[in-house]
Amino acid sequence: MFAEIITIGDELLIGQVTDTNSAWMGRELNKVGIEVIRVVSVRDRADEIIEAVDASMKRANIVLVTGGLGPTKDDITKQTLCKYFGTRLIFSEAVFENVKRVLAGKIPMNALNKSQAMVPEDCIVINNRVGSASVSWFEKDGKVLVSMPGVPQEMTTVMSEEVIPRLCAKFRTDAIVHRTFTVQNYPESVLAEKLESWEMALPACLKLAYLPKPGLIRLRLTGRGQNRSEVEACVNTESAKLEAILGEDILDEEDTPIEILIGELLKKKNLTLSTAESCTGGSIAARITSVAGSSEYFKGSIIAYANEVKTELLGVSMETLEKRGAVSEETVIEMVKGAMKALKTDCAVATSGIAGPSGGTEEKPVGTVWIAAAYKSEICTMKQETNRGREMNVERASNNALLLLRKLVK
Amino acid sequence: MFAEIITIGDELLIGQVTDTNSAWMGRELNKVGIEVIRVVSVRDRADEIIEAVDASMKRANIVLVTGGLGPTKDDITKQTLCKYFGTRLIFSEAVFENVKRVLAGKIPMNALNKSQAMVPEDCIVINNRVGSASVSWFEKDGKVLVSMPGVPQEMTTVMSEEVIPRLCAKFRTDAIVHRTFTVQNYPESVLAEKLESWEMALPACLKLAYLPKPGLIRLRLTGRGQNRSEVEACVNTESAKLEAILGEDILDEEDTPIEILIGELLKKKNLTLSTAESCTGGSIAARITSVAGSSEYFKGSIIAYANEVKTELLGVSMETLEKRGAVSEETVIEMVKGAMKALKTDCAVATSGIAGPSGGTEEKPVGTVWIAAAYKSEICTMKQETNRGREMNVERASNNALLLLRKLVK
Repeated sequence: MFAEIITIGDELLIGQVTDTNSAWMGRELNKVGIEVIRVVSVRDRADEIIEAVDASMKRANIVLVTGGLGPTKDDITKQTLCKYFGTRLIFSEAVFENVKRVLAGKIPMNALNKSQAMVPEDCIVINNRVGSASVSWFEKDGKVLVSMPGVPQEMTTVMSEEVIPRLCAKFRTDAIVHRTFTVQNYPESVLAEKLESWEMALPACLKLAYLPKPGLIRLRLTGRGQNRSEVEACVNTESAKLEAILGEDILDEEDTPIEILIGELLKKKNLTLSTAESCTGGSIAARITSVAGSSEYFKGSIIAYANEVKTELLGVSMETLEKRGAVSEETVIEMVKGAMKALKTDCAVATSGIAGPSGGTEEKPVGTVWIAAAYKSEICTMKQETNRGREMNVERASNNALLLLRKLVK
Repeated sequence: MFAEIITIGDELLIGQVTDTNSAWMGRELNKVGIEVIRVVSVRDRADEIIEAVDASMKRANIVLVTGGLGPTKDDITKQTLCKYFGTRLIFSEAVFENVKRVLAGKIPMNALNKSQAMVPEDCIVINNRVGSASVSWFEKDGKVLVSMPGVPQEMTTVMSEEVIPRLCAKFRTDAIVHRTFTVQNYPESVLAEKLESWEMALPACLKLAYLPKPGLIRLRLTGRGQNRSEVEACVNTESAKLEAILGEDILDEEDTPIEILIGELLKKKNLTLSTAESCTGGSIAARITSVAGSSEYFKGSIIAYANEVKTELLGVSMETLEKRGAVSEETVIEMVKGAMKALKTDCAVATSGIAGPSGGTEEKPVGTVWIAAAYKSEICTMKQETNRGREMNVERASNNALLLLRKLVK
């Protein structure tokens, strides 16, 4: 079963907002066997919206539209879809009650909010529990178009609770099975060469994709077919072959963020964690705490951007800083020990580097990062090199620190 | 001058990668008067790529294609474009030299890397200084299609250094002037009502858009026309009217991230900053340090997720924690003071709250966050309420903490 996504809004085209909705929708639809074959972003213009809708309705059985449902003048999706489907807007008492409920105690009702209770006459209206814009479900020639709000939290709620269950009930879908392998130690081309003969011999129902990430490559094996158990058997057989080829270089067989894997590991072993961050500036801590329930194992961090914070709060010696410099193996070892001591944890990670764009020297160019991970009395370190820009240098250092810790504790 | 963007790759449709390239391209192209009117993401399939390319070439004068240029089997953009433009792949010595240079000392050259030196015969080949995939510039009937790598750092480099300058040289573009106002204290519908009569009277060359963000609304006024000074005059006149209507509620007239504004303010006043973070878990520090040069004013943070870290490193009293709880005005005041003292800074922000999804109580439901900002002896606090999910609660708290600090220091 194929779907297309249409995202509406000038802000997407001018780049003031990054479309994160489509990726989320692609993931969730895939899980239930609906494959997104195209995503189209268009401006808030009736003719362009209609052209895009018409083309998508011709190609796919399911068209999911987000955005353009706000109370303001620049939002025209509702009227435009009425035009396309040959219907008109009517006042809905039920939607009006929902708008009132959502706004209750926050802002006074005005004419613009009231306009959100106007809905297309010839469609199924689905209430939006978490926002004031309702969802419209149109059907035509056995195909479905659903118009949803573009606010991510509202879209994800209505998709999960209403739209996906209804799509599953209406359409019979193929079984899709994904398995993702996170592979370390390979550049993309070298890995591809190593896997070439295996890949060439894959059965027709399977497809392999390479998804490089900073410092890692994810390999995604996708199987699809009418019979789930057959597809699963096929994916299992080929996965076993892949494991035999790559062995220890496979870091994980799940496409789970490393911060979640670390959390599970620490909980299982009943260990606590802290971080001492210089160049990553809190990014590692922010990733760890993005996981719900992280307070069970994460106690805190010392972000030591200034050298005096490294000495005073982490106990890095002045001598080390003077002789070896802040970006050195010795400094990150003292930092990681300092974090475990000050924050009383079983494990810790530490980073110190030159994120850039300036601050590099001949000996320590921009992009140089020293990383340490500690598990009780065991400490291991690594040096990250190659400058890929400030943001990427920090992201890679965060990835590497968490990977190093996982390896050590596991 | 209109452009369309086509992003190619199964990983975009299945949602394993979020397309951030298009938003970046939209912003940069807009600055030079090229308006992106559509973004289309398609799978790695020749027929779908050709259909999308053909449709875009009919609608726009400029078509920018990203992705599908890697060395592996699933990448087919180059061959497919050859088919569309009726040309073939030939070996380029110059591109081969570049591939060798880019890979030098990192990985050994193999047949797959060598295939990256195959380029379309009938196009202008532009070297990619930072990666092994070259850029192809096709022309047909006065229109241009440029195929670029999808890796963000490679795409941004070739766009900035090569593609945008060449597009500007080839096409005469309209003048586009944007002004963005960050407005606080208003729900979208209330703001829209307040601005309605002004908005209705805007001249035809101007357009207004509402861009809500957690806790804020950005208003974007866009003018376009052939004569830059006329468009600018028009934008200035209407901006002055808008300022008169909204006064103090306009937080900023630039679409600059708050962490950059804070950095400029602190540098100007020669002040230093630290953070004490509980529920934001390092997110504020990570945002501050995402700004190049932040080491000039940012000294560090104490992330105090566990209560004992609050008492031991920040000096929050046991009594306060017991009587008022960790999520209280008293606690964040002691935290912010503790950060200034421990990290020896002039300013600080502190957060403590219940990010969720669990941990809430009747009195302090999920979403409750206390925030404090301090500037020397002055301290101000605020309470954030309403649960919008863990991620959004943290993002809003970070925004609010930085806004509170800015207001205090300014």
